[in-house]
Amino acid sequence: MTYQAPLKDILFNLEHLSHWDKVSALPAYLDIGQDDAAAALEAFGRFCAEQIAPLAKIGDEAHAQHKDGKVILPKEFHDAYAQFVEMGWQSLVHPADHGGMGLPKVVGGAATEIVNSADMSFGLCPLLTDGAIEALLLSGSDAQKETYLEKLIMGQWSGTMNLTEPQAGSDLGRVRTKAEPNGDGSFAITGTKIFITFGEHDLSENIIHLVLARTPNGPAGPKGLSLYIVPKFMVNEDGTLGERNTVECVSIEDKLGVRASPTAVLEYSAARGFLIGEENRGLEYMFIMMNAARFSVGVQGVAVSERAYQHALAYTQDRVQSRPVDGSVKDAVAIINHPDIRRSLLKMRALTEGGRALAMSAAGWLDLAHHTGDKDTTFMAEFMVPLVKGFCTEKSLEVTSIGVQCHGGMGFIEETGVAQWYRDARILPIYEGTTAIQANDLLGRKVLRDGGKTAQRFSSMVQDTIDALSNGGAQAQVIAARLSEAKAHFDQCLNWLLSNVRGTPNAAFAGTVPFLMLTGNLAAGWQMGRAALVAEEKLAAGEDKDFMADKLAMAQVYAQHVLVETQTEAARILSGADALYEDGITL
Amino acid sequence: MTYQAPLKDILFNLEHLSHWDKVSALPAYLDIGQDDAAAALEAFGRFCAEQIAPLAKIGDEAHAQHKDGKVILPKEFHDAYAQFVEMGWQSLVHPADHGGMGLPKVVGGAATEIVNSADMSFGLCPLLTDGAIEALLLSGSDAQKETYLEKLIMGQWSGTMNLTEPQAGSDLGRVRTKAEPNGDGSFAITGTKIFITFGEHDLSENIIHLVLARTPNGPAGPKGLSLYIVPKFMVNEDGTLGERNTVECVSIEDKLGVRASPTAVLEYSAARGFLIGEENRGLEYMFIMMNAARFSVGVQGVAVSERAYQHALAYTQDRVQSRPVDGSVKDAVAIINHPDIRRSLLKMRALTEGGRALAMSAAGWLDLAHHTGDKDTTFMAEFMVPLVKGFCTEKSLEVTSIGVQCHGGMGFIEETGVAQWYRDARILPIYEGTTAIQANDLLGRKVLRDGGKTAQRFSSMVQDTIDALSNGGAQAQVIAARLSEAKAHFDQCLNWLLSNVRGTPNAAFAGTVPFLMLTGNLAAGWQMGRAALVAEEKLAAGEDKDFMADKLAMAQVYAQHVLVETQTEAARILSGADALYEDGITL
Repeated sequence: MTYQAPLKDILFNLEHLSHWDKVSALPAYLDIGQDDAAAALEAFGRFCAEQIAPLAKIGDEAHAQHKDGKVILPKEFHDAYAQFVEMGWQSLVHPADHGGMGLPKVVGGAATEIVNSADMSFGLCPLLTDGAIEALLLSGSDAQKETYLEKLIMGQWSGTMNLTEPQAGSDLGRVRTKAEPNGDGSFAITGTKIFITFGEHDLSENIIHLVLARTPNGPAGPKGLSLYIVPKFMVNEDGTLGERNTVECVSIEDKLGVRASPTAVLEYSAARGFLIGEENRGLEYMFIMMNAARFSVGVQGVAVSERAYQHALAYTQDRVQSRPVDGSVKDAVAIINHPDIRRSLLKMRALTEGGRALAMSAAGWLDLAHHTGDKDTTFMAEFMVPLVKGFCTEKSLEVTSIGVQCHGGMGFIEETGVAQWYRDARILPIYEGTTAIQANDLLGRKVLRDGGKTAQRFSSMVQDTIDALSNGGAQAQVIAARLSEAKAHFDQCLNWLLSNVRGTPNAAFAGTVPFLMLTGNLAAGWQMGRAALVAEEKLAAGEDKDFMADKLAMAQVYAQHVLVETQTEAARILSGADALYEDGITL
Repeated sequence: MTYQAPLKDILFNLEHLSHWDKVSALPAYLDIGQDDAAAALEAFGRFCAEQIAPLAKIGDEAHAQHKDGKVILPKEFHDAYAQFVEMGWQSLVHPADHGGMGLPKVVGGAATEIVNSADMSFGLCPLLTDGAIEALLLSGSDAQKETYLEKLIMGQWSGTMNLTEPQAGSDLGRVRTKAEPNGDGSFAITGTKIFITFGEHDLSENIIHLVLARTPNGPAGPKGLSLYIVPKFMVNEDGTLGERNTVECVSIEDKLGVRASPTAVLEYSAARGFLIGEENRGLEYMFIMMNAARFSVGVQGVAVSERAYQHALAYTQDRVQSRPVDGSVKDAVAIINHPDIRRSLLKMRALTEGGRALAMSAAGWLDLAHHTGDKDTTFMAEFMVPLVKGFCTEKSLEVTSIGVQCHGGMGFIEETGVAQWYRDARILPIYEGTTAIQANDLLGRKVLRDGGKTAQRFSSMVQDTIDALSNGGAQAQVIAARLSEAKAHFDQCLNWLLSNVRGTPNAAFAGTVPFLMLTGNLAAGWQMGRAALVAEEKLAAGEDKDFMADKLAMAQVYAQHVLVETQTEAARILSGADALYEDGITL
């Protein structure tokens, strides 16, 4: 099964939904034109289609293998990673003054989609390296930046995030890994970290682990955590690699999916580490990194959805079975002509395009927030992150499941390859914070911290789009009507949650996942509404008619098949919580 | 992970939802008391928990293996199957005059749930044997019954259904396998059949294949198909096994789940076969068998949901992480105390209990239809089959997915075992007719054949339950309100489909899966409503208070968290089809 990057749609999103006018007016991006972005994404799309996409099946069958503390990946991964580094793709969004290409996140997000559509296992290595780069840029000392940044940005070295321990998953306050001062400014890091993505491998020359640990006399709980750099190989003053640090890969996990991505158990035995930023502020740094990582995981949801859609489309165009129900043809036809397959494919597409639109617009806010520091923009960007992570990943389960279903019995056979997307996707609503964690972040932090103001601002921006659509053609008006209903559900639930979260916190927090799904759906539907407005305008001007007619129709499909879920989520929130806490229930 | 049969709930369903009073009044079941049924299910539950449940992981890891035309299953499967036969469990629902226990389907359905909760791979062998037995009972000659039935009913021999060929999946009219008369009353069967569950193995002494094939001069398409018995080993006149027939297992599939169930490609090379019933009526016989098999697959959906629920419950009671949001405790607590985990577990339970209630009530109608032949009852039973198959299997994907999610990162690790339920379940909405096939059957046959009368009768029975609930307590009234909304959605969509299916068949059939999901949801919610009425009555009488309070509360959870989905499905049907057929869409 081949993969083609959906460049046309990505560039439409970039141009019309990602706030490109404002992003490209930022001082950091003044030199960057849309043509540059398009050229980079086109080249990257070609590279990923040709070099990365074939890795998916190879890696799924071979798995990452663990032997004597080493992790072995298929040869093809080494070849592809070498080319990835050679072509400088790791550097895409990183600052030019550290050797990067310096493109904005709106372009980086698109690239993240492309590489993860090609192969999520491969895509995880650069995704984690990006996280380490961001942490260093944000909180590293000049000397640390000097030592580590360029090699990471070039992809010669890779990065990891070490948070989880057996007793500390969502609850990072329970982290036990110790950091004891060596007296020379370095620390001896001791403890066991689990679920470390690309925690050991030899695609890159060195691995820079970022490790959450606690000093002996620091405060208990989350406030005593600091962040440390622990390189796999020590780095000499001249930048060459020195001795092997005492961090060992004890084992890797046998997983449901992303099987070529080694998920390591790492044992730190007084490994030499170096504090990043200030002591006891580790969790704070980690959360800033995590916002970026969560956004990227949301994009992985879009990515695997796109791959599943292309796979299902190809199969249903090819597979001939049964006569059409409308009697238009006397012979059996390709199953794409059957109404339920059409519905299935269009639902997959609507969810994928809606997720992409949501992610690309959020990326624009993240760029603007990062470079302007403006509070309202920052709050809006941060409000979007749990939506991108939660909604796009949960929906990727649905999209990849429909993809299997479109294949009938063949979907259940591993050889077909489509089951892999279903398996790979299953980690997405879990890692970098489960959907429930995203949902609690949405309500507990992103909504409550300003008493609901950002949420209300979001709602009023949706209203502006509804008003504009209401003045449009028949399709635009259908979209406006559905958006208007969904927005009403959002407003109602927001008010209910704001009124009840203090008095009945259990009932409110039992509604946070439905609220996240409602809000993510509305946010994606809103972006599809914005897309519909652009499409109407272009159609009126006679520009790019096929694409624009299709986009307008897909926005309508989104409105009538996906957006209509908000009423169900609203019903769950508004009256469902009480049922969950009835006295009679015995668990 | 251990499994305990949910006997208490099963027996509640049997007593109160399965029309037991009418079923046990049937002449065939006059001698059978509820105590007999309970005793059988209790013994079977113990056997399955102890002997079958451990097979799930063993089989998932070992897979069925193919070597030199033979299929090798783990030794533990042989031991368990031998005990299964020894204890006579295959015979549970089969007639006493052929050596069976002669219990009704309401008991058989419960047993199907139990064995498939324990291990779906194991459960598939008796499930297919049941199908072969039903076909023989229905259409076999006396001599055929004499030759095959007793051994099948004892489980010494097993059965298969051979329909699918590479070019003929849902579209059975394309079957090419030939049946040429040998001149001695037997036929030479030649062709390739794929996806044959338990098509080869040596748990049983012989395998009786039921094969769809066409005679050389019969009509083209589905009307030229006949059904043949093709034994793996020929049967001598004295009942002993003779020579090996020329049907060979060419390969078995590497599947996403149910990996210990061998899915065979069978090559028939002029294998000796014997016509069942009349020529060219094969598809008709197959469909009668298939109704039974579809019901059983729906029950598998309930089964795997129950297993996933028990698994998630145990983990969330054990795993300690984070303080509660209501501040009631200062330390981290078992995650079952967090609102979203509570919501997740209760949704799993509501879907599982709702599915069970739907299946058990449908089983009652099937028993009554089978024994009385009454047309209204038969139509109602047949109306229920696609609901049980479609709704319970689609929802099993959701339940098993929530089960993974409740485990956080551990859910993605195969060692945990919970991912297996997610993988195993994925075949359920596919085999024995995909959900779309069920949905087309629901509308195209079960609704349209009497102009919607059965569907309207269903609706008015739901109304009776709503009326009764409306006179109940607060919880009953909440359930009544939600049921009433859902019923209104059903009525509205039914009318729309009846009005539009002729004029705009594509739009109507694009709505059949949403209509199936709406109707299945309503049917299960209705049964939960009936359960709530019983629970209210028992509570008033002070009987079995804990169980009844729990059941009433679960019916309310069902109403407020699951039944509320009908509004979304209705919106998709009533206005969504047009969007799918907009001119602009390019697929």
